Amino acid sequence: MDCLFCKIINKEIPNYTVYEDENILAFLDIHPCSKGHTVLVPKKHFTDLSEMSVADWQEVSMGLAGAFSKVQSVLNPDGINLGINNGKAAGQAVGHAHWHLIPRWHGDGGGSMHSIVRSGNIGSVQEVAQLFI
Amino acid sequence: MDCLFCKIINKEIPNYTVYEDENILAFLDIHPCSKGHTVLVPKKHFTDLSEMSVADWQEVSMGLAGAFSKVQSVLNPDGINLGINNGKAAGQAVGHAHWHLIPRWHGDGGGSMHSIVRSGNIGSVQEVAQLFI
Repeated sequence: MDCLFCKIINKEIPNYTVYEDENILAFLDIHPCSKGHTVLVPKKHFTDLSEMSVADWQEVSMGLAGAFSKVQSVLNPDGINLGINNGKAAGQAVGHAHWHLIPRWHGDGGGSMHSIVRSGNIGSVQEVAQLFI
Repeated sequence: MDCLFCKIINKEIPNYTVYEDENILAFLDIHPCSKGHTVLVPKKHFTDLSEMSVADWQEVSMGLAGAFSKVQSVLNPDGINLGINNGKAAGQAVGHAHWHLIPRWHGDGGGSMHSIVRSGNIGSVQEVAQLFI
């Protein structure tokens, strides 16, 4: 497939590996947001989270735990943002599901998950809650 | 414990539930970044990810998969950002590990995980890669 991340997994394109297990590969983002910014990809090609079974989520979560520990132990950051942009509307730039691990340091000037979007005019929480009943 | 999320889990404080299983509770954030902004908490009290075993990650991932599907099916957003602010330096505001599910729509004016931080002067990727060898 003509997928950037599949080519990295298949070693057609080199990477700076952070952590690897049988289900995932984690490597340094070459356009990092912070020191040690890491991308984690499942070795199976999933376009996005909607294609993953619960078993797939569990396999990937083992890798997330491993990559998280590796980044924490090697770089000793003060915090880490760990998350996924799922779908183009959420900022997904490559059509192979991938997580970002973004190490953080006190005073780095960054924010949080809340920095991603602040939508106005979204109605009340009570109205939205009715949809989930 | 004097923990906001433990009190919500124990029903001492009410919540607008989105999804629940034996390991996690997902509920609407009452200060949402977007329509349907959901917080997911493990029912066990973990201060942050460093306290979670691989088995804990797997249990939580089942809940993440379930909550993700629920939000997607009920609100049908164009995308979702799913992630965690781990540690105060990453924006963690409550000392009980929790994930944010932030539904996204085309044209909502938001960004991506990359919106969280853009650190300058972080050295080269090649230098960081040496630390992981």
